[in-house]
Amino acid sequence: MEYPISQIAQVLDIAFEGDDIVIDSIHNLTHATPRSLSFINADSYIQDLKQTQAGAVLLESKYLEYAPKNAIKLITSEPYLKLAYASKLFAHTISTRSNSPKIGEGCDIDASVRLGQNVTIGNNVTILANSYIGDNVTIGNNTLIYSNVSIYHHCLIGSNVIIHSGSVIGSDGYGFAHTKNGEHIKIYQNGNAIIENDVEIGANCAIDRAIFDSTIISRGSKLDNLVHIAHNCIIGEHSLLAGQVGLAGSTTSGRNLVMGGQSAASGHLHMGDFTTIAGKGGVTKSLQGHNTYAGFPAIELKVWRKIQAKIARLIK
Amino acid sequence: MEYPISQIAQVLDIAFEGDDIVIDSIHNLTHATPRSLSFINADSYIQDLKQTQAGAVLLESKYLEYAPKNAIKLITSEPYLKLAYASKLFAHTISTRSNSPKIGEGCDIDASVRLGQNVTIGNNVTILANSYIGDNVTIGNNTLIYSNVSIYHHCLIGSNVIIHSGSVIGSDGYGFAHTKNGEHIKIYQNGNAIIENDVEIGANCAIDRAIFDSTIISRGSKLDNLVHIAHNCIIGEHSLLAGQVGLAGSTTSGRNLVMGGQSAASGHLHMGDFTTIAGKGGVTKSLQGHNTYAGFPAIELKVWRKIQAKIARLIK
Amino acid sequence: MEYPISQIAQVLDIAFEGDDIVIDSIHNLTHATPRSLSFINADSYIQDLKQTQAGAVLLESKYLEYAPKNAIKLITSEPYLKLAYASKLFAHTISTRSNSPKIGEGCDIDASVRLGQNVTIGNNVTILANSYIGDNVTIGNNTLIYSNVSIYHHCLIGSNVIIHSGSVIGSDGYGFAHTKNGEHIKIYQNGNAIIENDVEIGANCAIDRAIFDSTIISRGSKLDNLVHIAHNCIIGEHSLLAGQVGLAGSTTSGRNLVMGGQSAASGHLHMGDFTTIAGKGGVTKSLQGHNTYAGFPAIELKVWRKIQAKIARLIK
Repeated sequence: MEYPISQIAQVLDIAFEGDDIVIDSIHNLTHATPRSLSFINADSYIQDLKQTQAGAVLLESKYLEYAPKNAIKLITSEPYLKLAYASKLFAHTISTRSNSPKIGEGCDIDASVRLGQNVTIGNNVTILANSYIGDNVTIGNNTLIYSNVSIYHHCLIGSNVIIHSGSVIGSDGYGFAHTKNGEHIKIYQNGNAIIENDVEIGANCAIDRAIFDSTIISRGSKLDNLVHIAHNCIIGEHSLLAGQVGLAGSTTSGRNLVMGGQSAASGHLHMGDFTTIAGKGGVTKSLQGHNTYAGFPAIELKVWRKIQAKIARLIK
Repeated sequence: MEYPISQIAQVLDIAFEGDDIVIDSIHNLTHATPRSLSFINADSYIQDLKQTQAGAVLLESKYLEYAPKNAIKLITSEPYLKLAYASKLFAHTISTRSNSPKIGEGCDIDASVRLGQNVTIGNNVTILANSYIGDNVTIGNNTLIYSNVSIYHHCLIGSNVIIHSGSVIGSDGYGFAHTKNGEHIKIYQNGNAIIENDVEIGANCAIDRAIFDSTIISRGSKLDNLVHIAHNCIIGEHSLLAGQVGLAGSTTSGRNLVMGGQSAASGHLHMGDFTTIAGKGGVTKSLQGHNTYAGFPAIELKVWRKIQAKIARLIK
Repeated sequence: MEYPISQIAQVLDIAFEGDDIVIDSIHNLTHATPRSLSFINADSYIQDLKQTQAGAVLLESKYLEYAPKNAIKLITSEPYLKLAYASKLFAHTISTRSNSPKIGEGCDIDASVRLGQNVTIGNNVTILANSYIGDNVTIGNNTLIYSNVSIYHHCLIGSNVIIHSGSVIGSDGYGFAHTKNGEHIKIYQNGNAIIENDVEIGANCAIDRAIFDSTIISRGSKLDNLVHIAHNCIIGEHSLLAGQVGLAGSTTSGRNLVMGGQSAASGHLHMGDFTTIAGKGGVTKSLQGHNTYAGFPAIELKVWRKIQAKIARLIK
């Protein structure tokens, strides 16, 4: 999809003058290309604004001085809300259409499995009954997908992957802009989700697609059941997420993250290599790796244990 | 379905004398009609008993004096257990039967979608593969239902609704009466679930139908993945429930409720307009709106932060 | 499946001399038969090793002195990792194959339901659209399975059972051995899951199959939505598990266990008859029955309430 910026400005009801350019994507300032529309909605991104390659930027007038000369400035008091409306223009059309998939050798795909358009499947892939594989999905070799799995459009599934029944890969991230009246306007999630090689995903998990770019479960990681991974998370390789773990948006980890049952992490933080979170722990800020944390807000396990002991003593 | 009260009394093994009436529903005392069977199982409902329109009431003899003259009294030492047995008489018959649905213009419904009896679907509705739409379900216009979604009988889905893969709307509420031997007798959930206009529901959520009346997700609300909404909850409009939130039965909220990931609320409480619950918070009693709460049991966020700081200092 | 132990040793790259025997299963030391391969990976199992009936045992040389004379000793520095590799040999082949099921009288099974090989279904069973019943599954009488349910191979479902939409029975337990490089090697889960009579399972639950033997939900138990039961758990009869409860592996309970919403238990512990866990509680060690516990780590509810009160006072 691509649109002249003049047309986008018209849809968004924003004044636009000057030479027209073609926009083919929406991106954050860092990843934007000369054909991207981008946006700024906080001072913390001023440096990114200065350096952005974006062809056009949604911004309040106070940020004008930081915007690159070449970028088209779309001035608005509500850049994030305008972004939400613009995102719809680039959303994939959801339909039941289907066409001939490319399927490798030795595959065993149940007749009830529904494939969208332009699906590519490697060799020796098994897909059980009533699963759904959306448009433009690619699946590697030797992968096993159990029944009633849903994989949304444009997701990439690696080789030697196992996905258990009921799991959903690439559902929309939870992203909304808010109007002054307290209504929530959907930011269409035009990224995807990538499940790398040798990953196993338990039953009834939900792994959201990214707003831009990709949510990634890196190779060798193993997720238990009912795990929730929000948009734009990147889980490092060989990580272990136990049952009912939840990660909020844009949180990332190094390799060999271990999270106990029902633990969680807030969004936009990083857990270093070999971080372990005890069951029910709640991570609220970035953590150094090679250590174990517990409690909510999560602190070093050693300290948490001391606190538990001291509370017990104080009470007596 | 309707039965003479004499027949119901016989099924329940309760003595009945007097003029017969026809019963077509079971309801709580407040909502009962002259054709309803109702019940009382706690003193707190005595006022409701006095004012009920119910045609018949299951009750212990100690409540006889409070029951309206016209109401038929079915005396039993276990009114709630008898209610459970009676509820089965009014349960919808679950079957694979199907008939011609009413479908509006411009719809795109996958051939693998299974529709029960008397389904009504508006215009421009998309339903992806392997979803199930139960008997007597009505769906509005422009609604998008992804793959592997299950919508139980008699639920109402509004317009401009999005339901992501794997979600279940209208599953039975978790309601049981208990025998003296510690067995649990199902209370058939004869209400429904209503998803109002402009609601978005994430992947693998479960929204239970009401025991009577309706579980309601009010317009403009957005649910993230793996959210659990128990029977008879009513979520106010423009609410935001993040991943893995859980609400117990009959809890209600005003508008713009915001609940962080893995937070929860006990049953039978109310959260006022613009209540915010921090992630992992657990609400155990009704809360004033226009405020933010955290922790378990949830308290004002400000106070919770002070306690965290004081605990930290005490420990040192 | 069965293999000469010489062949298994070769696959595992372990030296083997002596008379060959046929191995038809993998089991822990206690349940192993003369045709089982077993293993020891901790001192706590020395007593079990002394008494095992296993035909062959994977073990470090330090345990040699405790192994029964008759047992074949497969000496390795990584017995658990070798077990993982061996488990694959005994894994059921997952395929889309199907054959004529045995179906009793009065059943109502949707045409879209996919049955694997050797499925046995009793009388008056209803199965709604797009559910999947794996190989060698047996279902009793009068059982109701809603839409989009997945039941994995070799699971046993009792009579008068209700399973709500989206639930997954018998998915692989979360079991991995770890290499020195931090990679995780799947331990194939060759046990099954048993859902006894009169059990009701809510929507989008996940109940894992056992590594060996069976995960069991005992008769009369009722599970709410989004409940996670890990491999080898045994839930006593007439138990009640509310929404989003999670149990880690090998945890067991007596009868009438009650767990509130979002509560959880660690693995390898036991909760006695009539144990109640308050909502959000986290059980970290075995608990006496006939009592109520709360908090994390879970303690007696009475004590937990005192602590809450004292903390409140200390703060003031």
